[in-house]
Amino acid sequence: MKTYRIALVPGDGIGPAVIDAAWPILERAASRNAIALEATRFPWSCEFYHETGAMMPADGIETLRGFDAVFLGAVGWPAKVPDSVSLHGLLLPIRKAFAQYANIRPHRLLPGAEGPLRREEFDILCIRENTEGEYSGAGGRVHLGTPEEVAVETAIFTRVGVERILRFAFDEARKRRGKLASVTKSNAQKHTMVFWDEMTKLIAADYPDVEVTPYHIDAMAARMVMAPETLDVVVASNLFGDILTDLGAAIQGGLGFAASANINPDRTAPSMFEPVHGSAPDIAHLGIANPIAAIWSGAMMLEHLGAGEAAADVMRAVEATTARGLGTMPGKDKTDRIADAVLDALG
Amino acid sequence: MKTYRIALVPGDGIGPAVIDAAWPILERAASRNAIALEATRFPWSCEFYHETGAMMPADGIETLRGFDAVFLGAVGWPAKVPDSVSLHGLLLPIRKAFAQYANIRPHRLLPGAEGPLRREEFDILCIRENTEGEYSGAGGRVHLGTPEEVAVETAIFTRVGVERILRFAFDEARKRRGKLASVTKSNAQKHTMVFWDEMTKLIAADYPDVEVTPYHIDAMAARMVMAPETLDVVVASNLFGDILTDLGAAIQGGLGFAASANINPDRTAPSMFEPVHGSAPDIAHLGIANPIAAIWSGAMMLEHLGAGEAAADVMRAVEATTARGLGTMPGKDKTDRIADAVLDALG
Ligand SMILES: CC(C)[C@H](C(=O)O)[C@@H](O)C(=O)O
Ligand SMILES: CC(C)[C@H](C(=O)O)[C@@H](O)C(=O)O
Repeated sequence: MKTYRIALVPGDGIGPAVIDAAWPILERAASRNAIALEATRFPWSCEFYHETGAMMPADGIETLRGFDAVFLGAVGWPAKVPDSVSLHGLLLPIRKAFAQYANIRPHRLLPGAEGPLRREEFDILCIRENTEGEYSGAGGRVHLGTPEEVAVETAIFTRVGVERILRFAFDEARKRRGKLASVTKSNAQKHTMVFWDEMTKLIAADYPDVEVTPYHIDAMAARMVMAPETLDVVVASNLFGDILTDLGAAIQGGLGFAASANINPDRTAPSMFEPVHGSAPDIAHLGIANPIAAIWSGAMMLEHLGAGEAAADVMRAVEATTARGLGTMPGKDKTDRIADAVLDALG
Repeated sequence: MKTYRIALVPGDGIGPAVIDAAWPILERAASRNAIALEATRFPWSCEFYHETGAMMPADGIETLRGFDAVFLGAVGWPAKVPDSVSLHGLLLPIRKAFAQYANIRPHRLLPGAEGPLRREEFDILCIRENTEGEYSGAGGRVHLGTPEEVAVETAIFTRVGVERILRFAFDEARKRRGKLASVTKSNAQKHTMVFWDEMTKLIAADYPDVEVTPYHIDAMAARMVMAPETLDVVVASNLFGDILTDLGAAIQGGLGFAASANINPDRTAPSMFEPVHGSAPDIAHLGIANPIAAIWSGAMMLEHLGAGEAAADVMRAVEATTARGLGTMPGKDKTDRIADAVLDALG
């Protein structure tokens, strides 16, 4: 029996609840397809920070490197640890250290889910650059607290970084409906965004079968709301992808449904799978976190590991569950009740 | 009779059509309130660029400085002149030279208009920083065209710039429902956005009557779609405001309705009023551009000039027109027919 070793990092807030809800479903779907999942749990979190002074041990990254994938719940609890410490101490270092440069987020309405839009027919795959760009961290401040204070933040785009995310996106578009939207703001950001546009044109020459259209981020935000059915694959920088995928989550009915994969396409290190939602400290102890985003993220993990049948089984079970109206309204159903229904539907 | 001198800059594409449609309406509303508007027209545009080699004359800014306000249509026609030349040669220099640091954009559904959301009850005022931040233009590229190419773009936030836009936003919130949303991304951009958050806290102390809530840009984009009725005044940086106001335009039914004012609150130079839409070259000669965004922008100009009654008259006439279903669907009604109906409704 093929065995995959998965690192579970439940993290903070509702993170543990959704990981615990999703895990038995993934295990069962895998084993029905003759695959074993072997979990190792890491309690890295804001609590861990209070006990040890760090969000993860110094060799945390090296420890994770030995696994086939990382399955993560949520990181952050601002009242306990500032986001600047927690996110930059756990979530973001994993994405960067493992060159998980493609953050993939699917946006479509599950059966039974009601989105905020009148239009319900859309199926978008957002691909976000995940390791550089506007979240490089470069910058600084001078004359702190004086009237002369100036703060700068520098976005850094490298040829390697832009080329690899674009090629990944073109490949995904080729596997789907052959349409790629490339999102920049080259009429106002003349250096980095013009560079991205040029690279898009260059690489497009290698993909004559993919129809690529450039959009400005403002126009794309409007399009996702006014005409989402016109979009197929959308590729964007770290910041623009961040914004568009929350918007994508919104139109699919909310963060309870938004799944994501942080992919290292070259497979030189493990990829990481996590719901888009955060740790939601306000509802952390109510038992009402929607596990569907985590389950869907887990299905993306199975797919990535090569267990496509198991992934499809999970999604069929999720859809059977939401079609019955379970898990489709924020806070209505208990986490356990939704997860049990998916497990039942799996058979 | 009080007379205001207005510089008309119709610009490119549908710009002239919407300015010509809006102008008689503004004139009539003004004169019915004992105010005269005196127009001087400037043909600055991409065509002008082809004739003279510049988007406006060298003394263009100084010429405009003598007016009470600028009423602008749209700038840009990428097939004739690259955006990097046209926008940076006309629209953006005016905003910066005249310290029009507050870009104000109202988002609500006009009667008869159908938005893409199921929810229709919202009334948001977006306030965008308009002179610095992510659109500072600072940056560069090295190793062009080689595998080692790197492009950087630096966002610059000054204390003066951040403080004045925040104070302006707090003042607006005080005039409305007393709620201010301040939008950053301080969990991923640690320099500029943390600075903005700190300034927000500092200034909030002067406005105990305003309830201010910080949001991340991704969460705000989702909120504008999922729960727009929870928002009152929203303040954001140049880039974030740019994105949110296109999203705001989308939820109010499209760019045909989106008005904007580029305000110099200190009145040391003229303010500029323009529809949010661009020049739309593809429909420029069809006579179907929706003039409502321009008319609404004109009403904001009258309001700013102190002609509040005339502004209110214009908006009543616009609402009477859209309530009859005129101008509410893109491309359905001719520009002239919509403008005539507004003029009729004005009486
Ligand atoms: C928490 C934050 C740093 C993170 C990001 O922006 O990457 C989150 O918003 C996301 O979308 O995964
Ligand atoms: C054309 C462009 C430079 C402009 C901007 O981003 O300021 C436009 O998008 C706007 O919103 O007014």
